[in-house]
Amino acid sequence: MAGMLLFPAMTQLDLTGPYEVLARLPGWRVEVVAKTRDPVRTDRGLVITPSMGFAEAPQFDLLVVPGGPGTDAAMLDPETVEFVRDQARGARHVLGICTGSLLLGAAGLLRGRRAGSHWASRDLLAQFGAEVRDERMTIDGNVYTAGGVTSGIDMALRLAADLAGEDVAQQIQLQIEYDPEPPFTAGTPFVAPPHILERARASGAKIRRSREAAVAEAARNLATSKG
Amino acid sequence: MAGMLLFPAMTQLDLTGPYEVLARLPGWRVEVVAKTRDPVRTDRGLVITPSMGFAEAPQFDLLVVPGGPGTDAAMLDPETVEFVRDQARGARHVLGICTGSLLLGAAGLLRGRRAGSHWASRDLLAQFGAEVRDERMTIDGNVYTAGGVTSGIDMALRLAADLAGEDVAQQIQLQIEYDPEPPFTAGTPFVAPPHILERARASGAKIRRSREAAVAEAARNLATSKG
Repeated sequence: MAGMLLFPAMTQLDLTGPYEVLARLPGWRVEVVAKTRDPVRTDRGLVITPSMGFAEAPQFDLLVVPGGPGTDAAMLDPETVEFVRDQARGARHVLGICTGSLLLGAAGLLRGRRAGSHWASRDLLAQFGAEVRDERMTIDGNVYTAGGVTSGIDMALRLAADLAGEDVAQQIQLQIEYDPEPPFTAGTPFVAPPHILERARASGAKIRRSREAAVAEAARNLATSKG
Repeated sequence: MAGMLLFPAMTQLDLTGPYEVLARLPGWRVEVVAKTRDPVRTDRGLVITPSMGFAEAPQFDLLVVPGGPGTDAAMLDPETVEFVRDQARGARHVLGICTGSLLLGAAGLLRGRRAGSHWASRDLLAQFGAEVRDERMTIDGNVYTAGGVTSGIDMALRLAADLAGEDVAQQIQLQIEYDPEPPFTAGTPFVAPPHILERARASGAKIRRSREAAVAEAARNLATSKG
């Protein structure tokens, strides 16, 4: 069984992209788990209802942790961090999408591990002891970390192949007609036109500042925890 | 304002992919609209809560119609077909994702127009008078139709550029780190290994049969309607 974490102000595509892939895995059930069963408002307004609360959750075989603006609060919420740490301890695979990897870091799961994140937050993983990678998909043992938002789709297909074989993963890829044709070449800081990157950085500056503060505090919490 | 249609047993990524792009358009509000405000269960279990019911919906500037297994019932539901027809009449742009284009067809919006759909249902568009295209993205006037599931992300970026300019679209592409790296080459019938295509067709055979019946009935309804 797969458990996908849902929390307020997360970026919904971090969850819904991989959901579409993982829910098609034969024999797998996908649960969306949040603190309680109350509907959760994601960062841009979409409302998703979890299928179970933390207290009802069994040990998942696969734990999926998405990111988004709400990651800052989630990293500093002891109940959420504890849930991630406990589940990850028993899970066969852990998948962090976008800044969900920061939450994995806050739970102490990335110490000495190679890991990635959204390009705008990737460097911050070092504060949790991770070896930061500038890749769309990073795999270290049973911990899979993907870059920003849409990279969760690529990574979920990679994971699907590891869980159920390449034929199954390819069949899912065909079902969801995943033969991408991005209309522009702007999907990473390495390829985006410089003025686009500058604008994206400017519009994300406020988020970046509060994230730096949240990561510093979460790293201090981790250092003093028994996790 | 953009209105995205939500109905039971739809494929959630048809909606959530474009949502992530369109909700980032400066000055645009995105509403998720269903018959009522009750939470809706999508085909593989994810539950999404609409932000408004049909009766509350204003005239949208952009109407987005996703697809999925539930399209069959939606095409044959007079209230849904009427809602799509009425909204499309006043919208500046109409976007059909995956088999959402069949619903556009059932509402009489594709007569004499070039249009696409999910590869496994594309040919059925002809029954609604469309000129079927084997493309991931087809634009005919103000009607945008995308191929299966994930193509909605590409198409939403294309539409974002048309609505707000290429710089804005590229900035969104960078924010969602959309520089895809599909792990396999299997995303269309044209590139997938033959045994994968065969399996996908076999596993979709039942859906295809019920869809053929639903399209035939929807086409008859359209022929006798005043739409």
